Amino acid sequence: MKKLAFGIDIGGINTAFGLVDEKGDLYAESVISTKAYPFLKDYKTYVKDLCEAMKVLIDSVNFDFELIGIGIGAPNANYYKGTIETPANLWKFSDEDTDRSDERRIFHFADDVREYFPDTPVFVTNDANAATIGEMVYGNAKGMKDFIMITLGTGVGSGFVANGQLIYGHDGFAGEFGHVIVERNGRECGCGRRGCLEAYASAVGIKRTAFELMATMNVPSALRDIPFNNLDSAMLSTAAKKGDPIALEAFRITGEKLGHALADAVTITSPEAIFLFGGLAKAGTLISDPVKWYMEENMLFAFKDKVKVLPSGLQSKNAAILGASALVWQNA
Amino acid sequence: MKKLAFGIDIGGINTAFGLVDEKGDLYAESVISTKAYPFLKDYKTYVKDLCEAMKVLIDSVNFDFELIGIGIGAPNANYYKGTIETPANLWKFSDEDTDRSDERRIFHFADDVREYFPDTPVFVTNDANAATIGEMVYGNAKGMKDFIMITLGTGVGSGFVANGQLIYGHDGFAGEFGHVIVERNGRECGCGRRGCLEAYASAVGIKRTAFELMATMNVPSALRDIPFNNLDSAMLSTAAKKGDPIALEAFRITGEKLGHALADAVTITSPEAIFLFGGLAKAGTLISDPVKWYMEENMLFAFKDKVKVLPSGLQSKNAAILGASALVWQNA
Repeated sequence: MKKLAFGIDIGGINTAFGLVDEKGDLYAESVISTKAYPFLKDYKTYVKDLCEAMKVLIDSVNFDFELIGIGIGAPNANYYKGTIETPANLWKFSDEDTDRSDERRIFHFADDVREYFPDTPVFVTNDANAATIGEMVYGNAKGMKDFIMITLGTGVGSGFVANGQLIYGHDGFAGEFGHVIVERNGRECGCGRRGCLEAYASAVGIKRTAFELMATMNVPSALRDIPFNNLDSAMLSTAAKKGDPIALEAFRITGEKLGHALADAVTITSPEAIFLFGGLAKAGTLISDPVKWYMEENMLFAFKDKVKVLPSGLQSKNAAILGASALVWQNA
Repeated sequence: MKKLAFGIDIGGINTAFGLVDEKGDLYAESVISTKAYPFLKDYKTYVKDLCEAMKVLIDSVNFDFELIGIGIGAPNANYYKGTIETPANLWKFSDEDTDRSDERRIFHFADDVREYFPDTPVFVTNDANAATIGEMVYGNAKGMKDFIMITLGTGVGSGFVANGQLIYGHDGFAGEFGHVIVERNGRECGCGRRGCLEAYASAVGIKRTAFELMATMNVPSALRDIPFNNLDSAMLSTAAKKGDPIALEAFRITGEKLGHALADAVTITSPEAIFLFGGLAKAGTLISDPVKWYMEENMLFAFKDKVKVLPSGLQSKNAAILGASALVWQNA
């Protein structure tokens, strides 16, 4: 019988899920709102509604198959414990929560899903780790034993693979490359510190750079008519392709920060390749060219011209679902 | 029959070697000069003399044993290929070498030793990786799956262990943490770049800091009577223990640089512990206290107060031999 795995991607706005085979082909997919369940008190209902929607999706498939597992990618997820721990944008405290200790927002997600699917293995990991495993199982990292995945979205996520295994670390939270410090006492980061890579090299980071450049440069630019809250990395990419000098310089600076940080990461794990994934990576060579250039400029001699910078093989709208489902195939 | 492994530590001055059992007990040891064989043309004689001295040591043991392998730690060594590649201070070109291509200084060390010990497995790795495996097999990292070893000697070496395995990387040269950049356009490093951790946090790095402080501070200090070429990290440690303000400040700054760099490394691999090893680590809490303090000050929230900073369990004069021999036990 055909075997399929569930891949579930929990984002702050929506939760996307689908049924995927071992080649990465998607047979059915659906979505529920995450945002409709904003508070801690909504969590149990969210899990129930998600699991019921998953069962509806299973019933919609018009052939017999075996569900071999459920893979879930989520922010602040812990692979070892199957938990989602104190996520910034999910199931927050509301006014009626008087006890606001961190422990109350440790969600035993794998266990809670297992209540609805008692005979199915459930795996949870953070979204960047899920994308990394997706790259290894379905994407351009097939057969590679040592590589780095960088996800350039609202934040910067990462997954490090060494000796053919994802590095989860002692506590299950390894791969927070977005929070290496690239500028001591630099820009404020969402983590509460200053100067993290994420504050420069994410989709939001490049926008911050563009706004900094509008202040430091005098050159005319179409970007000067767009408010901060409306600008996104796709607009920056379009502007750069038209030759907008501020957009071009913003991509150069972003590549410089990320390239320098990657040269340091290479000295630690010596990967075969680095994959760029996510919204900002869709800018293609606009971002990958300066990343490569500054990484090589800064590279220790022993590693020069050895490490490939490659696009992800998962650049599709369903990449997050594929990544999450890959967790199942890797553990099958 | 008792089983013993050879551990060989190739340094720029001497080559130390000994016979070690699986518990890390040393049964016999000896040393030959490395310095007496300075040039490329001396290499074959060096290997011959070393292997003959090893056989003399074997004969000196007054009980029967089985030699189960030979482990070698050396600079620029490659575990996968068994080579020592273009080492800066070993078997250099002499005036008579007209062909100075890099390829001529790739030494197939494991193969060359196997000519004298044809039936014995031979393993080669760099000295910091050897120390890391030593810590895992005999030392304080026994049973740990995820840790970082930092060797603070003339340079800064490192070994990263994740999922219970040393990270060699795609090319076998991973773990060059001494060459992450901690100060953009900072001090000259031996690698030809600027601002590497090694230029600040090694035994030589802390000396450079002390000399910088003698320039920037006016406070009297016993160190002001010692020329650069005579000062070593043990003298700095003694001065700091007596309250010398320049020595104390040099340790603080060294701990700051290393602590900040380690906080970044933790975000990548999330280790259970970090071990400090080597000459400068002998300063004990003088170095480990500021390392801990600055690492925690700079730590991403998710990792705060989780990662231990510990002394190596191999702090003895034979640590390098033990480390090299551990390569054999790990592969046995």
